Amino acid sequence: MGAMKGVILSINPEATIVDISHEISPQDIQAAAFNLFCCYDNFPAGTIHVAVVDPGVGSDRKPVAIECGQRFFVGPDNGLFSWICEREREWRAFQLTNSQFFRQPVSHTFHGRDIFAPIAAVLSKGVAISELGEAVADIVRLETIEPRRLNDGTIEGRIIHIDRFGNCITNLTNEFVSDQTKLVIGDSEINSLRRFFADGASADGELFGVIGSAGFLEIAANRESAAAILNAQKGQPVVLIPHA
Amino acid sequence: MGAMKGVILSINPEATIVDISHEISPQDIQAAAFNLFCCYDNFPAGTIHVAVVDPGVGSDRKPVAIECGQRFFVGPDNGLFSWICEREREWRAFQLTNSQFFRQPVSHTFHGRDIFAPIAAVLSKGVAISELGEAVADIVRLETIEPRRLNDGTIEGRIIHIDRFGNCITNLTNEFVSDQTKLVIGDSEINSLRRFFADGASADGELFGVIGSAGFLEIAANRESAAAILNAQKGQPVVLIPHA
Amino acid sequence: MGAMKGVILSINPEATIVDISHEISPQDIQAAAFNLFCCYDNFPAGTIHVAVVDPGVGSDRKPVAIECGQRFFVGPDNGLFSWICEREREWRAFQLTNSQFFRQPVSHTFHGRDIFAPIAAVLSKGVAISELGEAVADIVRLETIEPRRLNDGTIEGRIIHIDRFGNCITNLTNEFVSDQTKLVIGDSEINSLRRFFADGASADGELFGVIGSAGFLEIAANRESAAAILNAQKGQPVVLIPHA
Repeated sequence: MGAMKGVILSINPEATIVDISHEISPQDIQAAAFNLFCCYDNFPAGTIHVAVVDPGVGSDRKPVAIECGQRFFVGPDNGLFSWICEREREWRAFQLTNSQFFRQPVSHTFHGRDIFAPIAAVLSKGVAISELGEAVADIVRLETIEPRRLNDGTIEGRIIHIDRFGNCITNLTNEFVSDQTKLVIGDSEINSLRRFFADGASADGELFGVIGSAGFLEIAANRESAAAILNAQKGQPVVLIPHA
Repeated sequence: MGAMKGVILSINPEATIVDISHEISPQDIQAAAFNLFCCYDNFPAGTIHVAVVDPGVGSDRKPVAIECGQRFFVGPDNGLFSWICEREREWRAFQLTNSQFFRQPVSHTFHGRDIFAPIAAVLSKGVAISELGEAVADIVRLETIEPRRLNDGTIEGRIIHIDRFGNCITNLTNEFVSDQTKLVIGDSEINSLRRFFADGASADGELFGVIGSAGFLEIAANRESAAAILNAQKGQPVVLIPHA
Repeated sequence: MGAMKGVILSINPEATIVDISHEISPQDIQAAAFNLFCCYDNFPAGTIHVAVVDPGVGSDRKPVAIECGQRFFVGPDNGLFSWICEREREWRAFQLTNSQFFRQPVSHTFHGRDIFAPIAAVLSKGVAISELGEAVADIVRLETIEPRRLNDGTIEGRIIHIDRFGNCITNLTNEFVSDQTKLVIGDSEINSLRRFFADGASADGELFGVIGSAGFLEIAANRESAAAILNAQKGQPVVLIPHA
């Protein structure tokens, strides 16, 4: 990350650079996508988000810049930004083909330094996104962040993120959840919905649901890791039964 | 943390934001309190410290802003700032009740983003602390950071922090310590006081005392973790015998 | 680190401070040296790099400031900067003896806060490096970063860094490597050289060589840790046979 900051400051010494997270596991595209999805719109309009979780660096995965929701996103076209584009609906994306803006020589192993950082820097200096390369018709998509409404009235979602506390964050939003909601995951059933983590006394390890900071239903456990208790995996399905 | 920085920069794009530590264990109020206690006064007068170790978020623990020692502190009223107020003696605190400054809607699970970050940002723009809410008579206190002088002339302290090297930092300060000092912890007795970590050759694992960077007596071990050797716990009592 | 940033901002509120890495293991001078070596020249000319991996703090190891490659380096004279000086060839170094620039009192345990941070801050305000103390004839050197050309035409290098993915970075550079190159480490022989990590399908755990972002040959494994597979250690010798 140091090299990228150096490249950005070399091009635009006035840039304000902040780190978003130091907790993404190596090459975990979905965790990075979720992290960015939860905070991009807290930043000022015009912010340029650079993301470098990039297991396919050097391969034929495209480098892209996207304008979406009044912000810019620069990184590999591997799904990192797909949930944001899904939510914002309107966006335009450009494959980074205009190599005059790259740091030369471009390595095969660190496009963060050689492509994404310099592109972010030139965007911050006012270069138009359309100058960066060819418009692309679509970007690589992760599995949709939208849950599915089944015929029997239940909602099928999945775990999209497990945080460092072991909370299992689902893609089920606020609107589906009420006091009567029951959540089923594997063999477990969760009836207790809390307003916040410290709400209500209970035994250690008791599972409960809570609406997390990004508006998604999370499965948590009293002072323990829900993921460990449930042996939960990212991608695992959960079913919401609206009126238990 | 990313979301909080975004909120701050959205309100005050000129703000200088720096991270103090990425090493506080989840929900460890005392570790965060100690970390902040050791560095707040290295920052310029007028600095606004935001702390978000907040296991009680959403409960009835108060959100506060404190003016103390020419700096501001914003966060949950859970003891994070109590040692600083104890040392500085003069301070004033306000419960954050004026919701016009909050990010709306306020979630039950992330006051860092919705309350503390925007309050820090408006303070940085010159809003008076007294406009943020009602003055409070006292704040939540951790156990005092002052050691106790016993009748027999010994000093009773405790381990207030264990750092990532396994050094056990006590609340015993410089003034109590001399060359003749003996430190007792559990069944162990430590006679050797060094001026710095690399001072003097010794066997691996040999325990010694050293005055750490914040002026507190630490128990360290040569190239090993003193905490592991002593099986030491935070809060564990230590006794200083001034003239062994 | 928080304290150091506070000290810098107290002296120069206009300073731009960025973190380079949060992943250096405690007291691992060589890892810090490598990290800095890989990114210092991505930063703008005039950048002041402060490094504080400093196991000898308080001992008679010298505090130094170095001007080299149009940048400044401030920290303990323990080898942190030796590879940079080796590569750049021209440099001048000054022992930090002029205590008027230090934060007083100087602790025995945290020169990062009391010496290196304030020195970096005064350099950023335009104080000449020669005002900081006495010129020194040489700095402490790590083992050279240059590989050795043996009489039989092979090149002997070593592992100089193991990253968090378990990739084993050697000191063998681009110029020694061709498609015919064979790399020997311990009992293992690596024939496969890839252009980038995702290049070519193979079984999990298959070892291959790749030129990393800093231009050094790395030993990597498909989706696994090469270091774990090879039980590799930093400093371990590797031999390059140019035409296998």
